[in-house]
Amino acid sequence: MSNASKTPSTMETISKERENCPFDLWRMTCAMHGGEEWAKLKGTMMIEIERDPSFRLDDIHDLSKDQIRERTMMKFANMIHYVTTERLDIFTKRMELIGIADPSFWTRFGVHYGLFLGAIRSGATSNQFSYWMEKGVLGMNGLVGCFGMTELNHGSNVAGLETTSTFDEKTDEFVIHTPSLSATKWWIGGAAQTATHCSVFARLIVKGKDYGTKTFIVPLRDPRNFALLPGVNIGDIGKKMGRDGIDNGYIQFTYVRIPRAYMLMKHTQVTRDGQVYEPPLAQLTYGALLQGRTAMVADGANVSKKALTIAVRYGAVRRQFKTGDNELETQLLDYPIHQRRLMPLLAQAIAMGFTALRMTKMFEKLTEELESFDSSSDTEQTERVLETLKETHASSAGLKAFSTWQCLDTIDKCRQTLGGHGYSAYAGLASMYADQAVQCTWEGDNTILSLQAGRSLISAYQDAQKGKKVSTGVAYLDDKSVLTNKCPSDTKCVDLNTMNSAWATISANVVKKAAEVYDTKLKSGVNKDVAMEGCSHERFCAAKIHTMGYLYRQFLDALETLESEEPSGSTTVSTLRTICQLYGAFQIEENAAYFLKYGFYTAKQMDIISEKINQLCAEVRTYAVSLVDSFYYSDHIINSPFGRYDGNVYAAYFNAVRAANPLPPVHPYFDRLIKPLLTRKPLEMEDAASMSIDEEIEEIQQERLSGEGEVDQGDGSLSLTEDQKLETEGTAEWEKKR
Amino acid sequence: MSNASKTPSTMETISKERENCPFDLWRMTCAMHGGEEWAKLKGTMMIEIERDPSFRLDDIHDLSKDQIRERTMMKFANMIHYVTTERLDIFTKRMELIGIADPSFWTRFGVHYGLFLGAIRSGATSNQFSYWMEKGVLGMNGLVGCFGMTELNHGSNVAGLETTSTFDEKTDEFVIHTPSLSATKWWIGGAAQTATHCSVFARLIVKGKDYGTKTFIVPLRDPRNFALLPGVNIGDIGKKMGRDGIDNGYIQFTYVRIPRAYMLMKHTQVTRDGQVYEPPLAQLTYGALLQGRTAMVADGANVSKKALTIAVRYGAVRRQFKTGDNELETQLLDYPIHQRRLMPLLAQAIAMGFTALRMTKMFEKLTEELESFDSSSDTEQTERVLETLKETHASSAGLKAFSTWQCLDTIDKCRQTLGGHGYSAYAGLASMYADQAVQCTWEGDNTILSLQAGRSLISAYQDAQKGKKVSTGVAYLDDKSVLTNKCPSDTKCVDLNTMNSAWATISANVVKKAAEVYDTKLKSGVNKDVAMEGCSHERFCAAKIHTMGYLYRQFLDALETLESEEPSGSTTVSTLRTICQLYGAFQIEENAAYFLKYGFYTAKQMDIISEKINQLCAEVRTYAVSLVDSFYYSDHIINSPFGRYDGNVYAAYFNAVRAANPLPPVHPYFDRLIKPLLTRKPLEMEDAASMSIDEEIEEIQQERLSGEGEVDQGDGSLSLTEDQKLETEGTAEWEKKR
Repeated sequence: MSNASKTPSTMETISKERENCPFDLWRMTCAMHGGEEWAKLKGTMMIEIERDPSFRLDDIHDLSKDQIRERTMMKFANMIHYVTTERLDIFTKRMELIGIADPSFWTRFGVHYGLFLGAIRSGATSNQFSYWMEKGVLGMNGLVGCFGMTELNHGSNVAGLETTSTFDEKTDEFVIHTPSLSATKWWIGGAAQTATHCSVFARLIVKGKDYGTKTFIVPLRDPRNFALLPGVNIGDIGKKMGRDGIDNGYIQFTYVRIPRAYMLMKHTQVTRDGQVYEPPLAQLTYGALLQGRTAMVADGANVSKKALTIAVRYGAVRRQFKTGDNELETQLLDYPIHQRRLMPLLAQAIAMGFTALRMTKMFEKLTEELESFDSSSDTEQTERVLETLKETHASSAGLKAFSTWQCLDTIDKCRQTLGGHGYSAYAGLASMYADQAVQCTWEGDNTILSLQAGRSLISAYQDAQKGKKVSTGVAYLDDKSVLTNKCPSDTKCVDLNTMNSAWATISANVVKKAAEVYDTKLKSGVNKDVAMEGCSHERFCAAKIHTMGYLYRQFLDALETLESEEPSGSTTVSTLRTICQLYGAFQIEENAAYFLKYGFYTAKQMDIISEKINQLCAEVRTYAVSLVDSFYYSDHIINSPFGRYDGNVYAAYFNAVRAANPLPPVHPYFDRLIKPLLTRKPLEMEDAASMSIDEEIEEIQQERLSGEGEVDQGDGSLSLTEDQKLETEGTAEWEKKR
Repeated sequence: MSNASKTPSTMETISKERENCPFDLWRMTCAMHGGEEWAKLKGTMMIEIERDPSFRLDDIHDLSKDQIRERTMMKFANMIHYVTTERLDIFTKRMELIGIADPSFWTRFGVHYGLFLGAIRSGATSNQFSYWMEKGVLGMNGLVGCFGMTELNHGSNVAGLETTSTFDEKTDEFVIHTPSLSATKWWIGGAAQTATHCSVFARLIVKGKDYGTKTFIVPLRDPRNFALLPGVNIGDIGKKMGRDGIDNGYIQFTYVRIPRAYMLMKHTQVTRDGQVYEPPLAQLTYGALLQGRTAMVADGANVSKKALTIAVRYGAVRRQFKTGDNELETQLLDYPIHQRRLMPLLAQAIAMGFTALRMTKMFEKLTEELESFDSSSDTEQTERVLETLKETHASSAGLKAFSTWQCLDTIDKCRQTLGGHGYSAYAGLASMYADQAVQCTWEGDNTILSLQAGRSLISAYQDAQKGKKVSTGVAYLDDKSVLTNKCPSDTKCVDLNTMNSAWATISANVVKKAAEVYDTKLKSGVNKDVAMEGCSHERFCAAKIHTMGYLYRQFLDALETLESEEPSGSTTVSTLRTICQLYGAFQIEENAAYFLKYGFYTAKQMDIISEKINQLCAEVRTYAVSLVDSFYYSDHIINSPFGRYDGNVYAAYFNAVRAANPLPPVHPYFDRLIKPLLTRKPLEMEDAASMSIDEEIEEIQQERLSGEGEVDQGDGSLSLTEDQKLETEGTAEWEKKR
């Protein structure tokens, strides 16, 4: 018997969830955003975005690729206003928010300001920089950039790029050329429809000598009418998994000439008479990579929080089945399994969020140091900065990889908790997944980044073995007893400090394991490269465990900082402590094999941990709705009826579906397809009997026997089988090889 | 320096991969397809599909939702020919193949034949069945069905559905009614544009009494013109994550009258005078569920194989970076980490494939038994069939859940191994993911199915404890020593039989664990329902481990059968044995925590297993290309330039992209958006100084002081902040609650 009438409305249900919240919502919100200033700013920016008509989001699931691209372009004018007038740290926060509202625009905008302008900033001489600034690059006055790195056959391997830039001494020009199909610049964001210039990565060839890959600014289109310039062939890359708002294209250069000064010459210089000066140091481009990775960790946290806001709010108001003798159907969030599905992900997103805040600060500090840094002077300072940079670079590689993977995983898990409704485009999770997926590939493929992180862990291990001091991120390698530490007692399994030791112990063990396998391979006689490849599985595991432990420590450290800032007895801190505990315990359970293998926990203790996770999930569930409120997203940014603040999910969903799908006045294909199907009569072939073919055959044969004409001696059958196998692409090809 | 010129072509590279294949390709192909008859049939069907213009696949990534739906409808005519003329087992294979070529059509067709006709088949009396057959249901002559089960507020919980069907004794009719928004039939495939009739799940109400959910055939549209019938309100559900070729809709019934005989009355009957006869037994509907699950396990295997064909062929021809002193860049497949990413998935897909073949056979046998089964007679037979049915039902629940999850995971992992190109729609993996995702939700949400499987494992455990004989799927529960078995020696870690024991041991332990937690909860005084929810995490783990072990055993058993059929020394068998070993070892590593926890393997043995996996990956890699050849998909079905048989990936990709994206003659938004942006001048607001407002203010104030008018005593500031916070939906709502 249905209880619809007795059931409280979804709005009443979600209101009830917000009663008795054990923490102060605004203080929690501020903590999640790194301080009240930023939280308030986010509120302001959300209003600005919501009222900007170009940021309309309610119709995006039904726009075609071409419509979404046009919508992207509409956003530029307003955003240029902010980028040219706002303080950099504030604008960075704005972009972070916009990345959540519209990942495609974030990308398109980032291609000009982050990649194209970034290439100029890091690669141009002072005069060159002024030149491009005067050309209008900062305000896009007459100039929109794209970034021409990847080619059809080469992505991550920049050293293998094939496009050439040959110096022509006679005319003082470079000749940019695509020597083959495989060298076609590919995936170039903005190239298809919206860029006038491209920062092209090409091999510098001077007097027949190949100096490797450098950067050249190449004009693509006439800004007055967008006609392609001579020798430039551009095509559209078309549909992608997601982010269709960005117009990726391909570019083929056919002997395109640019002035010599259009090569960015801060590092490598080419003189009028073809002399090439190469730079002494190259490491400093690390900085740009770091910024991208920090942004992606933050984005991973933010996108996870958005997905979880939808899943938790819906889980609170959706009822399904009755449990025991309850009158009402049970709220999904009240099912222990539903808590198990969502609460650990909630804790993980929060851990990622605090880590991103700390990384951003660290990155800002490092940038300051780099800017005040004079490579010609103090070698001790040089070494220190480079050391920090190296370590940060390695840790950030792992963080980028695992944050983007975890985010992708979170989105799909959230989608699945919505049941069938998660499959609706209007739920918003499908497009989030599709948009997010590329984060695992670009700015360094996650697997390759993990291996890099693993490589640097091995090198840190070797340093520690030699007695060299290692950097803070891998301090556990300095501790001799760490390898054999054990959990002190069953009652202390999930203490925050015990778990911290636990991560240190297994991190040290997996790094040691990777280094040992590397050594074994080396001793077997292969070269270093091959030995590194030979221990890649172990490197990968080391990077994974190290990164998980690193995230946990970041969360712990953030708690410590917060504790020093908040009043004593702060409910913000005590709540986050519980969440940190859940996060640590959950990741230990997820990676239980390592903790058992290296003996930090016993089998019995693993059971205690699992049971504790059940309890923590139930506890966090009681304030989960308030917790996602503290993520502080407007309904506009959430853009999903299931994630509405007011819980009015079904009416909003119904209205969204109806508004997006008006019934057409005439059925689009009834007359053409359905009517003929419904009213068809079987083709009558049974009346073939009326031909009496067998009797006729007999007559013909008798005539032939009695007559004198030539008679075909073949077997006369139609070679139907051969006929069926007529060559068609694909199957037939396959058949041939058989 | 680029080696482009020295590098062999991708076609040469892939040809080389096929040399020295250690097994006979055709025999392997036959083994993968359950015999030569089926392999040959698949070849024939692939040609038929490829030449059918409605199965054109090269343009699908750029069709709009409406275009794809129309394309779906075009396929009906041909397929009706097959469904009405082909033997059922052959047609089932055809549908299996079509599910790979076009999942949307598979769904739309399945809605009519599997769900709508299935509902009639299982629910109609003999006269009713004849009636609908005569109406044309088999050939869609005048009648296209959809399946009206789920509602906006109720999915899995059929008992909670709210739509009512009230018997009107005066007119001998049922009145079908949607009492509220939440009762709106939702997600109904085919309702939006293509169905004339619906099998509606509604609560049977007779003389005020609610008899629970029954099935009613309700006409929706006039087949002659597709006009909606009185009281029927249908809307379009619109965009989904995937499968846009199927037109899902919603339906609201407003006092729609149907004849009493349109209720399907095989089980429950309503007489002319409103007497209701309810059925004695209800379990027999298990059969229909089983068929769906078997199909989904097969689909999971097939889709995984398709994704892997793309990833393996591309991994063979893509080169990236040089290793050591090699002249050429390294093929991706030669990297140990790439082998680690793909080879275990290959083994897993093959394990799933063999399991699906065995399930199909088992299902066919069960169906035969059910058909010859007379519930009124022999009670021993009744019990036996019901027991088998129950066990198969439970095991198939877990298999459906984990196969669809693993398939989804495989697709995305394959996509990621393609690097950036995997993100192109034309690579085909994005749409495969989007289409596959719903398999984890429909026909039983995976998490709920896993819990069901877990529940039945607990009940089997309790039976075994009581000394009752358990069915073969959980035979390990009968063995008293199984719980404490250990790996006999380090050298036998990865023997096929050792691994079989290993799975039995940990399966038994996790099931025991779940049963114990259940008991503990029960003893704490809660009722059975709550106790079951209280051990849901443990039930889930039990289901997962049981299913993994079950898959492994199915693969082993299939090998045994194959061995008895193949000539001795068969390379098919020996190759599959290696693959089975890789599968078993990989899943043990994935679930290592359980094997360590229950002491089957030691930490050292786990290291041996991991090292063995590295070796097996390297071994399987040597014939991986031939292995995916044996999956036997035409290029047409694969529909991805990266998965081409001939390895000519780049040219095919370039041509596909170019063909799908012709440059428009006029730029779509240059004049409207880009030109104004590039040529804009800043709005001059600096000249505001020329108003000399401060001097003017002073003048005004002096005038006021000297004058006598009322002066506003407020602070006079514009309340900008309040103004900014003007109510807008969402943010403002949120602000209010703050």
